[in-house]
Amino acid sequence: MQTIGFSCVNIKDGFWKTKQDMLKNTTVDAVYDRFVETFRFDALKCQPSEKYIPHVFWDSDIAKWIEGACYLLAKEKNPDLLAKVESAVDDIIAGADENGYFNSHYLVTEQQDRFKFRNKHELYCAGHLIEAAIAHRDATGSDRFLRAMCKYADYIEKVFKIEKSAGFVTPGHPEIELALVRLYLCTGEKRYFELAAYFIDEHGKHGESVVETASPKYNQDEMPLCDRETIDGHCVRALYLFSAAADVAFMRGDRKLAEACRRVFDNLVNKRMYITGASGSTDMGEAYTIDYHLPNRTAYAETCASYALALFGRRMFCLEHNAKYADAVERVLYNGFLSGVSLDGKAFFYENPLEIDPEFNGYSQATVRNARFPITQRKEVFSCSCCPPNVIRLIASLGDYMYSYDDDVLYVHQYVNSVMECDGMTVEQITEYPKSGSVKLKFDTHGRKLALRIPGWCRNFKIDRAYMLTGGYAVIADASGVVNVEFDMAVTLIRANRRVHSNAGRLAVMRGPVVYCAEGVDNGKDVRNLCIDLDSKFEVKASPFLLPTLHTTAYQQPESDELYAVAKDNWIQTPLTLIPYYAFANRGESEMIVWLLEK
Amino acid sequence: MQTIGFSCVNIKDGFWKTKQDMLKNTTVDAVYDRFVETFRFDALKCQPSEKYIPHVFWDSDIAKWIEGACYLLAKEKNPDLLAKVESAVDDIIAGADENGYFNSHYLVTEQQDRFKFRNKHELYCAGHLIEAAIAHRDATGSDRFLRAMCKYADYIEKVFKIEKSAGFVTPGHPEIELALVRLYLCTGEKRYFELAAYFIDEHGKHGESVVETASPKYNQDEMPLCDRETIDGHCVRALYLFSAAADVAFMRGDRKLAEACRRVFDNLVNKRMYITGASGSTDMGEAYTIDYHLPNRTAYAETCASYALALFGRRMFCLEHNAKYADAVERVLYNGFLSGVSLDGKAFFYENPLEIDPEFNGYSQATVRNARFPITQRKEVFSCSCCPPNVIRLIASLGDYMYSYDDDVLYVHQYVNSVMECDGMTVEQITEYPKSGSVKLKFDTHGRKLALRIPGWCRNFKIDRAYMLTGGYAVIADASGVVNVEFDMAVTLIRANRRVHSNAGRLAVMRGPVVYCAEGVDNGKDVRNLCIDLDSKFEVKASPFLLPTLHTTAYQQPESDELYAVAKDNWIQTPLTLIPYYAFANRGESEMIVWLLEK
Repeated sequence: MQTIGFSCVNIKDGFWKTKQDMLKNTTVDAVYDRFVETFRFDALKCQPSEKYIPHVFWDSDIAKWIEGACYLLAKEKNPDLLAKVESAVDDIIAGADENGYFNSHYLVTEQQDRFKFRNKHELYCAGHLIEAAIAHRDATGSDRFLRAMCKYADYIEKVFKIEKSAGFVTPGHPEIELALVRLYLCTGEKRYFELAAYFIDEHGKHGESVVETASPKYNQDEMPLCDRETIDGHCVRALYLFSAAADVAFMRGDRKLAEACRRVFDNLVNKRMYITGASGSTDMGEAYTIDYHLPNRTAYAETCASYALALFGRRMFCLEHNAKYADAVERVLYNGFLSGVSLDGKAFFYENPLEIDPEFNGYSQATVRNARFPITQRKEVFSCSCCPPNVIRLIASLGDYMYSYDDDVLYVHQYVNSVMECDGMTVEQITEYPKSGSVKLKFDTHGRKLALRIPGWCRNFKIDRAYMLTGGYAVIADASGVVNVEFDMAVTLIRANRRVHSNAGRLAVMRGPVVYCAEGVDNGKDVRNLCIDLDSKFEVKASPFLLPTLHTTAYQQPESDELYAVAKDNWIQTPLTLIPYYAFANRGESEMIVWLLEK
Repeated sequence: MQTIGFSCVNIKDGFWKTKQDMLKNTTVDAVYDRFVETFRFDALKCQPSEKYIPHVFWDSDIAKWIEGACYLLAKEKNPDLLAKVESAVDDIIAGADENGYFNSHYLVTEQQDRFKFRNKHELYCAGHLIEAAIAHRDATGSDRFLRAMCKYADYIEKVFKIEKSAGFVTPGHPEIELALVRLYLCTGEKRYFELAAYFIDEHGKHGESVVETASPKYNQDEMPLCDRETIDGHCVRALYLFSAAADVAFMRGDRKLAEACRRVFDNLVNKRMYITGASGSTDMGEAYTIDYHLPNRTAYAETCASYALALFGRRMFCLEHNAKYADAVERVLYNGFLSGVSLDGKAFFYENPLEIDPEFNGYSQATVRNARFPITQRKEVFSCSCCPPNVIRLIASLGDYMYSYDDDVLYVHQYVNSVMECDGMTVEQITEYPKSGSVKLKFDTHGRKLALRIPGWCRNFKIDRAYMLTGGYAVIADASGVVNVEFDMAVTLIRANRRVHSNAGRLAVMRGPVVYCAEGVDNGKDVRNLCIDLDSKFEVKASPFLLPTLHTTAYQQPESDELYAVAKDNWIQTPLTLIPYYAFANRGESEMIVWLLEK
């Protein structure tokens, strides 16, 4: 089983083309400018400055930006962008220590503390630098950055695996494991895979905390990965770690580790994931909590965790041919990940709540202090600005998530208007999905069967060829031709498991893979009171949010001066406008809710 | 207008007789024993000890216990209880400073800091000692304790009003204002009233914080009381303060201050009060927050604030003859106050939440730390144990809340099986209220009209005499005879104002003045999912909780393995048992909810 990379996929038109255009026209420069303004690029020169002390994780922000920029450059020339990339790469190569080490903090200050403290993100930054170098090689053809990063990887192998001279055994924030697997695939050097596998295998065997005050659980370190039943601790760390674990399990045929990955994935999507695909139920430790604890207003739901679920799902498919993995990728792409970026491409959410009440949130946060809420408007940069470059990385590399193949079958995971060409296979998708549910696929699988994912949200579909359903995929025996698929895009009302107490008595509205929300700007105050029922009929209207808005009649209680009154059947009708969740908070601060009352 | 005191009222049988019996048979001794065990009584001896350092507010716990015990002793001899009281009084009198000062902390340690720090509760303790001394005089006929406390009051007047030599102007925790008004009424010494009025008038004019880090709002000190529109800050402080302000406004005919009291009362009961009569929406500062912010699981809802609402309501009636004040007293008596004590009379809630989920609460509190929940089981004593003796004080003095009169009208505020005799007036109430809604009153008003409160919760009632409705009271012109009243005790479903977002889509169940709740011990897991509808029929059954339980058929979602599923009309029926809210948490830790989903 192999996953087809985005370099083989050209997105031609439609929803994701618009988002990719937004990246190249706005986001990549906006993020660059903010990183320049905050001295992150200056810091690469590794010179002491009075203006700033480089944070230990600044290099990761830059590396992810380089990686994302290189994904864009791989598709389309852009001398100005290339010059910015090359300048940063020059500084990194020039600044690296003789032994290959690079970290713009420890090269300038606290030199004696390199690789001493597990929570200092050096290996996390190293991983991102390696991924950036691979992307740079792919985009430019030059391997100068890659060579520097191979040298750094060699040094890391020496310190951590050969000499074991570091202050800790495994990375405090996983990421390098993913990068080392990619470095192996890129260079063919097996040592890199073995170092990745070493970090995965040692993880949880040493009860290492990141800091003394944190529980090993924070860091997935309370047990070996193979023994894990649930997803726990810091959500981005957990998902990066298990994405790499899935790589390792697949590449060395490790069934025990693969089983653990499957259990963890299932625990996440069946018990700990928001309907948007986002996850992480608390900002305390940016972490998972317990099954079914999914508070909407205080959701942590970090954009990076949503990104990481896409990474994890993409890898899990190699271990098990089940549509649930691509379902999760699709869920997060259109919802909990995409909400992380504003419609103009300039501003970002770190956290993506499913409900906002500016008046009560604002009061509670400022005054009561025992409740803490996500911010309600996106920001252009954060002191910990991990999410913005992940937005660039994922949207620019969206083609990575669309196809896998083995000798017998070519799997189509996502429906995007695009052309794929790889190893003699071609698939052209002609579609406005998910605006419409019609997808025409012109395909030549080079002798393979063609497997089309039937999205988990889809109750009715038509395929104009014979097919067999297996693992959530409709498998067509033909190796070439045209197939027309029609997914029913009816608006669907979703109920959460009754154990999710925050959603008791409430319904979410979806159309295809897209989760909708109601904002105060359209619907007035007290959106928590808006009721719909199972018979609600929705009108679908074109909108400036690319995907349509939904319109129906809702019910709400009348305004009143009484605090408590005898309940009457006195609901009043009110027009209800729902917008795609990803588009919330683009029109000023406003109430917002995903889970509407059921009447 | 005068309020008839409990000494004129004998409760004969029924609900409150059972609770008064519980006090004398159990609670008064249980609280005594816990205070002995925690050295609070030892501390009265004002001797240094290695075992404890007396907390600055310990004296208030003792004083409130003495006051409550004396209320019991005023009704029934009890040599053992009297001996305990007298021993404590001996210690207080013996320990007092020559100038009258008494505080078991500052008499032993930090002597130089007396009356220096506003947050040190000395005047709060003094107030409670004064109230205890009045109760002691009334119960025993001896004025030895009262004389000592008059001396202390004189000293306080000297330090705060004459010499102004204290470290602050007004008390950090109101209470002495209430006590000084009572001391004036008890002794006829006008200076005590004037000192109370001085504290009320100066409050909020000096922007005094209790501690530098707290906002003056915490302490109702951000403006003069007359200017206040809303109830804010620490809820017990606010309610004690405004109770005394209502006294002062009434006694000196201060319309501006009376108006402020009315505004604050209305703000509380119309926008900031739980349906149980409890109030205080956050533990941070034990405080009010903003209008309609009434979270159920994290409610602060302190038992003492409920007690204090009864104090406030009782006093407000003197300023305005409106049934809303006695309605509030009744609401809190049967619900948010009474929940503060266990059915066996031994254990207490400081906070009285309206919803409990042990699994999620427990997890969040221990691990997530950004949410903080009230305890789920009552405790026998607290380090700050203000609530237990307030339970004794209020139940023992319940007769205080039943009648007021002026030259023309005798007002009946509460319905309790009892006999009242005062100034030639007699009222015998024969009733099982609120088990039943029938009340027979045999009355002789000594020439006045008789005004019967029609409870705010009551939609249908019958009175077998001619009456005129005014201000929520049915006024009968006859001065003597028998009147039979029948309040319809139908089960009522209550909806909260739509601005109360935590109750959106939910209904509360009341029968008469009693709020009901569903507990997991009767209804299984996930009580947040239990739905009732406006047509639900309730069976009323006798129960071990004194008042009946309610039984109906509810609906809930089936258990499921799916986290999110297409919503179906697949509700399943399930028997629903509701118990009086005050009886929750008497059968082990359990889920509990007041506001049930509306189907």
